[in-house]
Amino acid sequence: MTPLIEPRVLKGFRDFLPVAEIERRALIERIEAVFRAFAFVPIDTPALEYTEVLLGKAGGETEKQIYRFTDNGGRDVAMRFDLTVPFARFAAEHRATLPLPFKRYHIAKVWRGENTQRGRYREFTQCDFDCIGSDSASADFEILLIMKEALAAAGARSVTIRLNHRGLFNRFLNKIDAAGKSAGILRAVDKLSKIGRDEVLNLLSAELDDKRACQIMDYIEVKGSWDETLRAMTDAAGGDNPDSERLKTLRDFMLDTGTQDVFVIDPSITRGLDYYTGVVFETLLDDMPSIGSVCSGGRYDKLTGLYSKDALSGVGSSVGLDRLLAALEALGKAAKRATYADLALICVDEARGGVYQRIAGKFREAGISCEVFFEAKKQSAQFALAESKGIRRALIEVSDDRVILRDLAARKNGAELSIDDAIIFLKKNIP
Amino acid sequence: MTPLIEPRVLKGFRDFLPVAEIERRALIERIEAVFRAFAFVPIDTPALEYTEVLLGKAGGETEKQIYRFTDNGGRDVAMRFDLTVPFARFAAEHRATLPLPFKRYHIAKVWRGENTQRGRYREFTQCDFDCIGSDSASADFEILLIMKEALAAAGARSVTIRLNHRGLFNRFLNKIDAAGKSAGILRAVDKLSKIGRDEVLNLLSAELDDKRACQIMDYIEVKGSWDETLRAMTDAAGGDNPDSERLKTLRDFMLDTGTQDVFVIDPSITRGLDYYTGVVFETLLDDMPSIGSVCSGGRYDKLTGLYSKDALSGVGSSVGLDRLLAALEALGKAAKRATYADLALICVDEARGGVYQRIAGKFREAGISCEVFFEAKKQSAQFALAESKGIRRALIEVSDDRVILRDLAARKNGAELSIDDAIIFLKKNIP
Repeated sequence: MTPLIEPRVLKGFRDFLPVAEIERRALIERIEAVFRAFAFVPIDTPALEYTEVLLGKAGGETEKQIYRFTDNGGRDVAMRFDLTVPFARFAAEHRATLPLPFKRYHIAKVWRGENTQRGRYREFTQCDFDCIGSDSASADFEILLIMKEALAAAGARSVTIRLNHRGLFNRFLNKIDAAGKSAGILRAVDKLSKIGRDEVLNLLSAELDDKRACQIMDYIEVKGSWDETLRAMTDAAGGDNPDSERLKTLRDFMLDTGTQDVFVIDPSITRGLDYYTGVVFETLLDDMPSIGSVCSGGRYDKLTGLYSKDALSGVGSSVGLDRLLAALEALGKAAKRATYADLALICVDEARGGVYQRIAGKFREAGISCEVFFEAKKQSAQFALAESKGIRRALIEVSDDRVILRDLAARKNGAELSIDDAIIFLKKNIP
Repeated sequence: MTPLIEPRVLKGFRDFLPVAEIERRALIERIEAVFRAFAFVPIDTPALEYTEVLLGKAGGETEKQIYRFTDNGGRDVAMRFDLTVPFARFAAEHRATLPLPFKRYHIAKVWRGENTQRGRYREFTQCDFDCIGSDSASADFEILLIMKEALAAAGARSVTIRLNHRGLFNRFLNKIDAAGKSAGILRAVDKLSKIGRDEVLNLLSAELDDKRACQIMDYIEVKGSWDETLRAMTDAAGGDNPDSERLKTLRDFMLDTGTQDVFVIDPSITRGLDYYTGVVFETLLDDMPSIGSVCSGGRYDKLTGLYSKDALSGVGSSVGLDRLLAALEALGKAAKRATYADLALICVDEARGGVYQRIAGKFREAGISCEVFFEAKKQSAQFALAESKGIRRALIEVSDDRVILRDLAARKNGAELSIDDAIIFLKKNIP
């Protein structure tokens, strides 16, 4: 006899059991409905690509984490580690057929061989949405509005979206003659919420003289209303310019849509990466800011620069699905269901399996999910099984057209009803 | 300057542009709605697993096709090549927490380094649904009923599901003393629709004497009503037995549900694989039988046998999504849309970007997908862009609360309306 193989998944990988998968899908479906309402369209790209295509832009850290190998045809291939690089390749490759501006979303798994000790997974879902081919403030604003709406649809009704402009920050760095150090400065500033002001000041002082380090601290710590903050930032950057103008226009659009309470201007938001060139933004849950940003992004100049001379600009954002799920769960806003069924049809006589399916079919046609039980076990056992699955009602066949509905939690049978009346009752009483 | 990297995907891999991805998702969503109506629940498993776990059961062909490599931690890993093996591993690993019978579906990508010359892809989506932990005829029948309903929901209303029983066929082989050759016989019989009767007879004659080869041909070519065919098969197998009884019960269930016209008993269906032990089935589209089976499966005995002594039995099926999509397309039943938008909001003044979003928000709240245009190009250009995307109507803002709807195909503006009236009109007129 062959010895058994131990059934186990790789470290950092997960099975999704029904409760988790139902919840994950419900969240994705709610977010996707918002993307579609804004007329964003889905795309998909391969999980495997040429390593050259994926690693073109990425540096050392990514190269260490990527799942890379030689395929049977001798090609150097790798599993995608994000959805941004594949989108850049996609946009360059299909440039001629994409109507611009092109508004797309992409929800798919990505893989990184990260150190799992930090509670990170090696396989996780990314949820990106971008608008490319438009430099307009309306494009920036639409992404911001989708973030607000998508999070509300996900159950996070109280959020703060923190907004900054990388171009404006660069103007300020130029003004104080610190542009040459911008990479280190951006990395330091990006850590403000994690390591605190003193540590950031230390990091800055390692790059620059104390005076300029303090000027940067002053800049990123400006407090006040949107207008006051923007004024101070603009002055520090040398006066009005297209980037400060962009932040002003976005503020007008917020007022026009009555969404201004959701947005805060925050000069300390930089989103680390060199990639961004315009607005950048992060989203905190008001009820759980400590979990960090659940939706972030920004505007970039040269999406397709690696693959094409025709460099497309765009603005995009990414929902942190795992983090958002964890937060909703901790906030008690996750619906823990192990079933879609509204109803369990009890089996009294196994020979009536066909009749049960006919009856169940009538409920299903009316939009009521119905699980048919197959085995004529004791009714109490069937009730218990249904309840353990999270099904709230049992259906007991009396005759071909007559049924009894049982409220499983209350342990009470209702009156005998026609199937049609039972459907009417359930349509009224299913949330 | 860094040289450009050629944007290209690996051979056998595909990008899904919006038209294709919208269609693929619409199909999956319709099928998934049927799974949910039957109270099947979704699961997900990792794309990467230990090679040992995935290859345990599979033979030489699979081993050659699998994407296998050593990860950074020195583990021998592989990308899943189907959803059956991961499900077996999943069921063994989570056996204690799964309520039985466990009805699950799994729609996910799988990878095989196949020869792409046969028009096959190296990355494709599988769509499996199984009920494990019940041996009852009701479980078999439910899978059959879901096949019918899922295909109808997908747009394939006229299908024939061909049904056989591997156990009954084995009894017949025993009876004619040919059980020892069953693997070769099954492989030969499985090819009947592809290579024709003469070739099958040749293959059988290579395995057996002419008499028994002819007996097998007689068996698989029985013609007549369900009852006549089943009678002939049962007699050839030595008389009534639990397997012929199962086919009789399924026929009763078909009559009970009025679905008998969809099902045909066909003794030549074997589904090749050794895996199946009970009913086996295939589905042909009546309008395009030549494309082959679009949904197939059967009953198996020992799903988890490789990983656990507690061998679960079950019955399951798999929708051939790519094939089904190709067929629906060829039959003109695919909805080719490059957008979800019902409406394009025309941009007259870019400074009104916020107002446009406020107006669009009212339509979106009412369930009407609305694309906002960002740039104040000539109206005719915006109309053309909307039409090229497949959007049927344009919305032109007159004042904060007044709009005009334009039928883009008819090139006609409607009367000036309030936003509320425009919403009422669209709700009535959007299919």
